[in-house]
Amino acid sequence: MRGETAAEPETEPLALMEEREEEEKERSIMGQEPKDEGKSGEQPREENVVDVCVVVQEEEEVENGEMKKEEQMKVELEAEFYQCVPGQQVSFIRGKDLFGYVGIEAVLEQMKRKTMKAGFEFNIMVVGQSGLGKSTLINTLFKSKVSRRSCMPNHTEEISKTVKLHSVSHVIEENGVKMKLTVIDTPGFGDQINNENCWEPIVKYVNEQYEKYLREELHVNRKRRIPDSRVHCCVYFLPATGHRLRPIDVEFMKRLGKIVSIVPVIAKADTLTIEERQEFKERIRQDLAANGIQVYPQKEYDEDPEEHIINNRIRESIPFAVVGTDKEHQVNGNKVLGRKTKWGIIEVENVAHCEFANLRDLLIRTHLQDLKDVTHNIHYETYRIRRLSESSESSGTFTELGLFAWPLDKCESDSQL
Amino acid sequence: MRGETAAEPETEPLALMEEREEEEKERSIMGQEPKDEGKSGEQPREENVVDVCVVVQEEEEVENGEMKKEEQMKVELEAEFYQCVPGQQVSFIRGKDLFGYVGIEAVLEQMKRKTMKAGFEFNIMVVGQSGLGKSTLINTLFKSKVSRRSCMPNHTEEISKTVKLHSVSHVIEENGVKMKLTVIDTPGFGDQINNENCWEPIVKYVNEQYEKYLREELHVNRKRRIPDSRVHCCVYFLPATGHRLRPIDVEFMKRLGKIVSIVPVIAKADTLTIEERQEFKERIRQDLAANGIQVYPQKEYDEDPEEHIINNRIRESIPFAVVGTDKEHQVNGNKVLGRKTKWGIIEVENVAHCEFANLRDLLIRTHLQDLKDVTHNIHYETYRIRRLSESSESSGTFTELGLFAWPLDKCESDSQL
Repeated sequence: MRGETAAEPETEPLALMEEREEEEKERSIMGQEPKDEGKSGEQPREENVVDVCVVVQEEEEVENGEMKKEEQMKVELEAEFYQCVPGQQVSFIRGKDLFGYVGIEAVLEQMKRKTMKAGFEFNIMVVGQSGLGKSTLINTLFKSKVSRRSCMPNHTEEISKTVKLHSVSHVIEENGVKMKLTVIDTPGFGDQINNENCWEPIVKYVNEQYEKYLREELHVNRKRRIPDSRVHCCVYFLPATGHRLRPIDVEFMKRLGKIVSIVPVIAKADTLTIEERQEFKERIRQDLAANGIQVYPQKEYDEDPEEHIINNRIRESIPFAVVGTDKEHQVNGNKVLGRKTKWGIIEVENVAHCEFANLRDLLIRTHLQDLKDVTHNIHYETYRIRRLSESSESSGTFTELGLFAWPLDKCESDSQL
Repeated sequence: MRGETAAEPETEPLALMEEREEEEKERSIMGQEPKDEGKSGEQPREENVVDVCVVVQEEEEVENGEMKKEEQMKVELEAEFYQCVPGQQVSFIRGKDLFGYVGIEAVLEQMKRKTMKAGFEFNIMVVGQSGLGKSTLINTLFKSKVSRRSCMPNHTEEISKTVKLHSVSHVIEENGVKMKLTVIDTPGFGDQINNENCWEPIVKYVNEQYEKYLREELHVNRKRRIPDSRVHCCVYFLPATGHRLRPIDVEFMKRLGKIVSIVPVIAKADTLTIEERQEFKERIRQDLAANGIQVYPQKEYDEDPEEHIINNRIRESIPFAVVGTDKEHQVNGNKVLGRKTKWGIIEVENVAHCEFANLRDLLIRTHLQDLKDVTHNIHYETYRIRRLSESSESSGTFTELGLFAWPLDKCESDSQL
């Protein structure tokens, strides 16, 4: 006898399935669950989906206009998770409805342990003309000599005639968490008489890392963990001129903003007075908007209302005006990182003095994982779509259709294994 | 002027690069770091890599024979992480070497928050002849009526003439963590006069879920989060006969063990005396080994020595002899889940009475994430390799080479974006 598969969901032509999923997604957004298709049994509990939204309304205070958009965002996100495979029913069971403790949250501890064992990668690129303190700032961020210059103490400081890219990696372990940090330096950028196309080697480098990742991902025998050399963040250093964005800044960020997460900073901000700093920041934000430049964190990638509110605050205060140092000084008996001048000590990590702490929090303490996620989900994905479309156009070799033409019932033959 | 890319690592033919990586991996395993290729600067600190290994030796007490293998495993795992891209230097900076707190561990909190927001999927399949308490056990595990039978109270209990597959999904939220649990039931399995090939529909279902995931993954415009319907765990119910594995058990587990993580359990174990249980378990372990049946957790997938020790303990005590119930009883003033008989109450969650708690811990509290990881990294990957190899053989359409033929310097043209 040959068993008959009556698996629910039943196999349907793929196009049809997608159509139905779309339909059902729409229904879920409207607060309805997909109909129980002719099956007896427990009715899907509609009120529970609504419950979740109510909690959001109570917890967060936002203006009425914003609220609608954010609520929508949250509902869409949840609809994706609760989305049913056609023919499936999904209902919601809350903690109080359980007849005992299950222990679902243990998965968080399991993930944490796995991350701690495996470590993680973070790749940061620094771009800006020489003399803006790029190396010092990176060293200040990671509290160690991680920049290329620090690693090459005998390096004679010459301005290179072309833009070069250098990467240096360190594994930093703090409280049992291991980060493989790669700092990519771009000496020569903006240092020439004619800086035309000086962003090209940088664009090329960024794309090459996506390409490497893509090839690894498509490999038939791929590595369990694909080595990640993709640039998760590009810190762009603006000189503290107090004027506006320069043409080179506009051109660079316009291009790079489309393929990588850019975090612009005002370097050596200790030369600006409080008013100059505020005005300069305001003008830069205007220039960014006027030129359609996308910097991190982009509004369109906010994943939920909570993130939207947090990121709005960041968007209102970029670019951070920073000061870097690797020197310690005594202030009121405490050791602080700072720059001593004749008129006082600028405490680098004191938010009243400069915005270094805001930058550090963004890059490391609050958004590091998000920078990695945006790189993977947005920038890499955009590259992949373009690349695979072009590739199939030009050679006709990579087609989903080629794979899809493979008959599904071949799965059956696996039972003969 | 057109900028020249002198990015380190420099672009090399892919085959050559892989060869060099292999070389360097080998060197790392031997405790040496790759040579600093002609660059001045900081010397890689060899002693640090050795440091890590020393800590392992101090922390874990294992027999001398086992130790070597486990140490090797750990070193290999780390070599992978510290592995250098050719031309790169990686050195190790520990917490005490930092001149301040960086906050790297904040990434754990960021990941936790993202997981809590997004929720996660877990798909469990139950297989075994009718009357073994499959539904009750699943309900006991998840402390709610999640099995298909509980969702269909008016369902007339008929033994189906063929093996059917039914899935039912619930979102369970406990302490803010959301799990979308899908229980896949297989009514009719082993219930026929002639049970030949009754595993086929199950093999087909398992493979179909891999196929769906693979198609989503290869889609040019793929979803940010690929819906995961892959079977993360197959709980196979053995009747508490006290004898040995039956031919149907052997045939099923032999086939399915190659494509999915199988957790065998002895159902309705309250019929066995202490000695009978021990002897039965021992005989089953012998039969599994004699027939080359792979059950979860497999020795070969242990990721490090710590996991190896924990999993050895599990391997020595499977299959768990379990009893399920959804009834509560009073024992010494406490409410406990149990089965009341004339000769006493079997407390289901009391490890002195049965091994339900061991099963629950394995499936939910300690190995849930690992079950998902093994499904993704081992079983899905195995399917993918076979599938893509076959696909390119038969139609010649999916070839890595087709993609690789695309010239790398096309990346450059992106700067014209």
